[in-house]
Amino acid sequence: MGLFSLVEPGLQQVDILLAQTLRQENSLVAEVSDYLLLAGGKRLRPALVLLAGQFGEGSDDKRQRLVTVATAVEMIHMATLVHDDIIDEAAMRRGIPAVRKQFTNPVAVLAGDFLFANAFELFSRSHDMAIVELAARVVNVMCVGEIAQNLSQGKIASEADYWRRIEAKTGFFLESSCRLGAMAAGTDARVQDALTLYGHYIGLAYQVVDDLLDWLANPEKLGKAVGGDLAVGIYTLPIIYARSQGQYQAELDQYLLSDRVVEYMADIKRLLDASGALGYARRKAEGYIDMALHQAAQLPEHPARSALQELAEFILARDY
Amino acid sequence: MGLFSLVEPGLQQVDILLAQTLRQENSLVAEVSDYLLLAGGKRLRPALVLLAGQFGEGSDDKRQRLVTVATAVEMIHMATLVHDDIIDEAAMRRGIPAVRKQFTNPVAVLAGDFLFANAFELFSRSHDMAIVELAARVVNVMCVGEIAQNLSQGKIASEADYWRRIEAKTGFFLESSCRLGAMAAGTDARVQDALTLYGHYIGLAYQVVDDLLDWLANPEKLGKAVGGDLAVGIYTLPIIYARSQGQYQAELDQYLLSDRVVEYMADIKRLLDASGALGYARRKAEGYIDMALHQAAQLPEHPARSALQELAEFILARDY
Repeated sequence: MGLFSLVEPGLQQVDILLAQTLRQENSLVAEVSDYLLLAGGKRLRPALVLLAGQFGEGSDDKRQRLVTVATAVEMIHMATLVHDDIIDEAAMRRGIPAVRKQFTNPVAVLAGDFLFANAFELFSRSHDMAIVELAARVVNVMCVGEIAQNLSQGKIASEADYWRRIEAKTGFFLESSCRLGAMAAGTDARVQDALTLYGHYIGLAYQVVDDLLDWLANPEKLGKAVGGDLAVGIYTLPIIYARSQGQYQAELDQYLLSDRVVEYMADIKRLLDASGALGYARRKAEGYIDMALHQAAQLPEHPARSALQELAEFILARDY
Repeated sequence: MGLFSLVEPGLQQVDILLAQTLRQENSLVAEVSDYLLLAGGKRLRPALVLLAGQFGEGSDDKRQRLVTVATAVEMIHMATLVHDDIIDEAAMRRGIPAVRKQFTNPVAVLAGDFLFANAFELFSRSHDMAIVELAARVVNVMCVGEIAQNLSQGKIASEADYWRRIEAKTGFFLESSCRLGAMAAGTDARVQDALTLYGHYIGLAYQVVDDLLDWLANPEKLGKAVGGDLAVGIYTLPIIYARSQGQYQAELDQYLLSDRVVEYMADIKRLLDASGALGYARRKAEGYIDMALHQAAQLPEHPARSALQELAEFILARDY
């Protein structure tokens, strides 16, 4: 039984609960909530909740709780995307105009808050306060990380700063998605820990791959422009690594510190290739996926274990 | 024992817990969180939580829970103010530059989210899932109301629309502050209902007075400009009432539909006076305060009952 056949029925229930929860009677507001549902997405976080939850008991109650938590997790993710697009002044998201473009920045602020509020209403239906607390902690950690990133925008960080930043932005959320699934399903502590570490490592790998795809992906498939992070003053691993290679630093800084960095994207990409920075980032991602697979191997024999292994490989293989 | 002597010790504990919860180690983020604490505020919502909670049992556990819930309620309020200032492009808040002005719009988006997240972490410490659920519902109702208001901006609403809007914006939050206090303290159902209705009525009165003060207050004491709602396309009760008086509508619409409405604020205020609109709004507020006092009279004899009665009178008397 493959990854998709295992999570697809659960993800369909997530999509149904998303639509049920966000649906609004006020026709003005319905236009916004319908638009939030339109973009779809990879549904990685709810898939992690659902897969982690396979290692618990399979009572109907717990299955329903798992879908509830998975849906709430996706809503948190949707809220952060809607707000991130305001912060990055993004035009596109998931291949369609960002909420802030389709409507306005004020509506996007409120739509994000609306998603957070609905997420916590769903979390409250989990009957487990530790789930609510961890979910709030995830949002808290992401916000603190993003505030720090935003206030240091345009400053070129160290590689240690980079790892701290992606831990706050993605690592903790993916690790917590796995943990929330395990909590909702009541898995034993050893399994919960292995799932949490698995989520932690794929989270770091996922973000490194994301940062690589910002340079390598087909812009149409990605749904946004190449070099987009750099264009808004965010320095990711390839740039940080290339600068640390002495011979490329001077030429790179000349482009990076220019007022018209967007015009030099092709030159910058050439230096990233030449310095081996793209290969370095790739190897880092592969290393974290190996560590994730090692954690998956600690899990009990179960179709969900194979699915998590497949998911880890998929994170390296994806091109959008 | 007066209103302030009764709630002051609790509000001091709220301020301490606010500071403890928001304090950040990262020095960049600390600059933002310290600023969030700087502005202070009337602390109306936590005062309602604390006063409502006086009607329950007074165990140490419940007192601590009450302070936790009161603090979380104030954080929700702070989050909505930070985000509202982005939406209204406000320069000032509580007499100092708005977060979006002191920092940037992106930081204000994240700071609001950070406050929401911290609020729900605190709510999760209440050990009562119904409290988490109601708190999330409050945010949800406010967002839906604000999205509807934002998308109908510049359209002149009916008086019925106005009451619906302030119910979503303020009525439900103040009513829920009372209910959350009653829940946290475990008051009996009849007391909880009277407190909830009391909160509902003072909420409506409070917002009407707020909308009146937008025309009548000393701008320095209020901490923001006169006619500010109208300047951002929000039509409040005085405007809606004045337009409903046939003889003023044509002249008023001439100003309202102008591209330079801000230049006509003095003319508009003259029409609000002449049409009796300011007096009408005042009488509406007085009517709701009477209804709140009627609910307070149903409560058991207790110093907190006198304090709630004093608070209701204060809402009519305030000039900022």
